[in-house]
Amino acid sequence: ELPVNIKFLVEGEEEISSPHLPEFVRDNASFLKADGGVWEFGGSGPTGIQEAWLGLKGILYVQLEVQLLSHDAHSANACVLPSAAYTLVHALESLKDKNGQILIPGFYDDARGLSAKELDMANKVDLSEEVIKEHYGIARFINGMSGMEVKQAYYGGPTCNICGLDSGWQGNGSKTVLPAKASAKIDFRLVEAMDPEDILKKLRTHLDERGFSDVKIAWYEGYPAAKTPIDHPFMQLIVKANRRAYGHDPVVHITSPGSGPLYLFKDKVPMVSIGCGDFFSRVHSPNESILLENYQKTIKRTVYLIDEMSHW
Amino acid sequence: ELPVNIKFLVEGEEEISSPHLPEFVRDNASFLKADGGVWEFGGSGPTGIQEAWLGLKGILYVQLEVQLLSHDAHSANACVLPSAAYTLVHALESLKDKNGQILIPGFYDDARGLSAKELDMANKVDLSEEVIKEHYGIARFINGMSGMEVKQAYYGGPTCNICGLDSGWQGNGSKTVLPAKASAKIDFRLVEAMDPEDILKKLRTHLDERGFSDVKIAWYEGYPAAKTPIDHPFMQLIVKANRRAYGHDPVVHITSPGSGPLYLFKDKVPMVSIGCGDFFSRVHSPNESILLENYQKTIKRTVYLIDEMSHW
Repeated sequence: ELPVNIKFLVEGEEEISSPHLPEFVRDNASFLKADGGVWEFGGSGPTGIQEAWLGLKGILYVQLEVQLLSHDAHSANACVLPSAAYTLVHALESLKDKNGQILIPGFYDDARGLSAKELDMANKVDLSEEVIKEHYGIARFINGMSGMEVKQAYYGGPTCNICGLDSGWQGNGSKTVLPAKASAKIDFRLVEAMDPEDILKKLRTHLDERGFSDVKIAWYEGYPAAKTPIDHPFMQLIVKANRRAYGHDPVVHITSPGSGPLYLFKDKVPMVSIGCGDFFSRVHSPNESILLENYQKTIKRTVYLIDEMSHW
Repeated sequence: ELPVNIKFLVEGEEEISSPHLPEFVRDNASFLKADGGVWEFGGSGPTGIQEAWLGLKGILYVQLEVQLLSHDAHSANACVLPSAAYTLVHALESLKDKNGQILIPGFYDDARGLSAKELDMANKVDLSEEVIKEHYGIARFINGMSGMEVKQAYYGGPTCNICGLDSGWQGNGSKTVLPAKASAKIDFRLVEAMDPEDILKKLRTHLDERGFSDVKIAWYEGYPAAKTPIDHPFMQLIVKANRRAYGHDPVVHITSPGSGPLYLFKDKVPMVSIGCGDFFSRVHSPNESILLENYQKTIKRTVYLIDEMSHW
């Protein structure tokens, strides 16, 4: 017989921003009360050391669409007819400058910076900058950042990122077309205290005030960020269990730069994200993999965590 | 027996900028000497009146490509990794402002404006603005142009047009990806005296000087504009033949806003573009069509033109 109660929550809609989870959480408050929670996510970092994540960023995902003509035109007409693709380009350019600064008025207003304690914790972490650069084949990070600049952006920076661009002819060779439509998919990663609905409103206002009322926000989804406090005692049990399974202390991150609906569990369950993957797992890509050694040790870590919790 | 000599030149590479035609023209100079030439193109305009075109714009078609990462990344990493899509957006924005002004230094330097005679001719033409607006479902032309502004742009304006945009995820719903690559297809319509090679160099210099050396010009093709003089006597034969076949004078345009390798025949054959299509022919689109009446009358117009030329 297990020495602690264990509850499982399995959700399959995280990649579409968990549309039904808020309702489930609201209707099952008592089920969700717990002393500590493991959020299955991550695993070992670039150097093979296990990682634990105390938070997840929020997200606002939008699809921007522009249609200015009833149908595509021969591009000879570009001298007089409006261009959906160029309107989209100008709208996107108005959202972010070349240095990565987001230009939507009020975008950063509510963004909570990292606390002194969090900065101190970040300072001790090795983000393996060189390994990441090599992995992605880049010579430098945005703006040539290094050290604490990279960490500030990684843990505390909101983003405005183009996930997709679509307009006109994309096959081989030339086609002289003035496309009727253009669209872009954008995700904004949000840090603590930023509200996706508020950012959505500010985005709409910005587009309208800059003359981009033709740019429709065709759909959106999102949720806010959340973090488990870095000094929560549950974290110490995770460290002990990890040490027993892997023989080393995990690297503890203030938050993942990725998103998840952790905010729903805030003040209910202190959550720490750990997992059995690794930096080279090709998450969300073909040939995704885990290492068998990590798989076995992660099972053991779970057992040790149950043991640690039973005499907490 | 025909009262005049007739030569046919059939070319199938115009849509890919006629890469082999210059060589053919160079090697067959004597074959190409003629008193007048019909460039098969166009037909009747929006109101059903036949149109004749004295020139064709030039073109420079380029494919811009940016790749900043060895492979796509999870968009959580957009806080530190560079974005190919945003770099492309900033590069495209640097080429043209919201009013359609092209910002490449020196772009307009060699562009020859319309002559007083051409402006006078343009002034007499009805471009059927309202029919065009209705056809494309627009309330206004670029910058709300009307009258002579539209005609200046139509006959005398070079363009910078996005034919296609391609990056990342374009399917339904969301995918949180930071795309490794982004690309754009751009066509520049060139007016008389602009040199595509010169514009290409200016584009490259502009991109480099604005910090967009990462934006590659993956390939390009193009040729310059050309016009048959508006007072060339051959044009009068076309008018006469058209009147005999259709019962009305054709609308004579200084140039088409579209492109073709007319420059190769300049000073060899006075060319006028006429055809059997119509404004609603859906050129380059599915269900392309011509009207049988126009088809028959165009055959007759050809016979009348041969007759006119035989006693020129």
